[in-house]
Amino acid sequence: MDIVNEIKKGNKRAAARLISMIENQEKEATEILKACWGYRAKSRIIGITGPPGSGKSTLTDQLVKVLLKERKRIGIIAVDPTSPITGGAFLGDRVRMSDLNGEPDIFIRSMGTRGSLGGISKAVHGAARVLEVFGMDYIFIETVGVGQSEVDVAGIADTVVLVTVPGMGDDIQAEKAGILEVADVIVVNKADHEGVDQTIQYLKSLLIRNSGFMKGGQANDESEKDRTIVQIVSTVAASGDGIPKLMGAIDDHYSQMIGSGKAEKLNRERLKSELLDLICTKFREQFKEYDELNEAADKSIETILSSDANPYSEANILLKDFIEWYPCKDSS
Amino acid sequence: MDIVNEIKKGNKRAAARLISMIENQEKEATEILKACWGYRAKSRIIGITGPPGSGKSTLTDQLVKVLLKERKRIGIIAVDPTSPITGGAFLGDRVRMSDLNGEPDIFIRSMGTRGSLGGISKAVHGAARVLEVFGMDYIFIETVGVGQSEVDVAGIADTVVLVTVPGMGDDIQAEKAGILEVADVIVVNKADHEGVDQTIQYLKSLLIRNSGFMKGGQANDESEKDRTIVQIVSTVAASGDGIPKLMGAIDDHYSQMIGSGKAEKLNRERLKSELLDLICTKFREQFKEYDELNEAADKSIETILSSDANPYSEANILLKDFIEWYPCKDSS
Repeated sequence: MDIVNEIKKGNKRAAARLISMIENQEKEATEILKACWGYRAKSRIIGITGPPGSGKSTLTDQLVKVLLKERKRIGIIAVDPTSPITGGAFLGDRVRMSDLNGEPDIFIRSMGTRGSLGGISKAVHGAARVLEVFGMDYIFIETVGVGQSEVDVAGIADTVVLVTVPGMGDDIQAEKAGILEVADVIVVNKADHEGVDQTIQYLKSLLIRNSGFMKGGQANDESEKDRTIVQIVSTVAASGDGIPKLMGAIDDHYSQMIGSGKAEKLNRERLKSELLDLICTKFREQFKEYDELNEAADKSIETILSSDANPYSEANILLKDFIEWYPCKDSS
Repeated sequence: MDIVNEIKKGNKRAAARLISMIENQEKEATEILKACWGYRAKSRIIGITGPPGSGKSTLTDQLVKVLLKERKRIGIIAVDPTSPITGGAFLGDRVRMSDLNGEPDIFIRSMGTRGSLGGISKAVHGAARVLEVFGMDYIFIETVGVGQSEVDVAGIADTVVLVTVPGMGDDIQAEKAGILEVADVIVVNKADHEGVDQTIQYLKSLLIRNSGFMKGGQANDESEKDRTIVQIVSTVAASGDGIPKLMGAIDDHYSQMIGSGKAEKLNRERLKSELLDLICTKFREQFKEYDELNEAADKSIETILSSDANPYSEANILLKDFIEWYPCKDSS
């Protein structure tokens, strides 16, 4: 396949095309990813999440500049909240610092939250795989986080950075409590604004309530097993203040993950979850694609609508239909 | 099963217990739902979605008071953003107007976004089913919406009400564009605040950009087929202003849905999607439950980690393993 070679050669257009194919759920995309698989780099994936206006893009760009000086190759996937129905991007492609956009070692991609909830998460996963094949040293994934957001970035990233700003109301912070728990590093950005210390104090108290624990603080045995140390770093992304410290905190977290064997364990868990996702995707695809299965589903729906049959029993019948049908059709 | 009879008798504790079982993904819950299926009422499901602080709960409570006067039985499911890891509810159970909490014909349930993204959506679906069996005339589902939110309320509700407030920044509105498209009725709540007219104008322009169309406005043929008319209603939930008008808009939407046959079509689509979800859930459960399948998955993971094997091919192998294994184990 030509596109495979082009991606390996570092052709950005080929990578962009494959990501579009993944977004559009073209079946060929899987075949191409299959053919690429062996060429993946061991990319470090960093999730950057936080509310709109917290400065995620500026922060990412500053981190990227640091890494560029170390001659790293970097991919950025920015998830834009767009229309689930028309797929139109209201925000349009994010306007990026022009000095990054032109860099040969940088690949930037905006992805909209079109399609189903699960859809975007899968597409971001796929795009990250493409960037691994592209040989990226680092892949940044930016998402707007409220509670659990469109993309379960914690399921993909080695390190999740939560971006907050000073003076967020307590109620907003509490709403973010969910994401606070998946955060490995917390940033208080715009630290030149008032209220930094209070916000840091508040975040610390939330972390303690979460039975997380602070660097230098008391750890209890249980949380020590499950969690790495969460650092809180204050930055001013616009001026670059605090960026080296943030990079250090991200590296610290990664070293802890490797040292404790947690990275290895997580990798296995993610592969398992990816395998089950792939099977479910294949399963759904085939129900769309094959008339026999479509008819079986329609029959189940009619049975439910016209009698007291329930979907739980019908789902079992449909699964049996699938299992009887599958061996005749399987071609891969 | 005793719990089935208790729910049918209107025992709120039994309903609450079954919902908890669903939340905790206890397998028995499915068996109970199966046994209950034939007793479902034809409940109307209304989704209330919008950002934190827009007044969703107050608005729901006002609508519920109107319906109580008509002697309707009402369920409320409030989805609270809580911790995905510990499951602890930071917001705690929402403090509800005490005059509603005690009503015999009202059932209120807060659900946290614990577990995986798909998890909460499934749990809310299940809870709605329980409330149908409970004989509710109306079921309200409240969710915090940003882009596509934790719960794909559009996939469950007959009518989706989007709650906004005056003076929301344009950028915030744009971020909400996704949810704007699944909204059947839009509320500008807190209409005693400044900026109501501008917000309504802005929402109208977004709706037009979305090729939606306004009551009395020009409709183009394509959108007419796919969409019902979106009404924008301004309310002051705290005082009750505009509530009857909002109830009227919700009823109008429902009548359109029934009259156009869209309700019927949607019902079929949702059943199909529910059936496929159930099969995937069963599939995953069995991979957790049976050692043979677990071992097969572990073998696939080892193969991927120790060779150039890719997850796409391994997923196919795993699916074949499942299909060969399944007939021996199937007991339902």
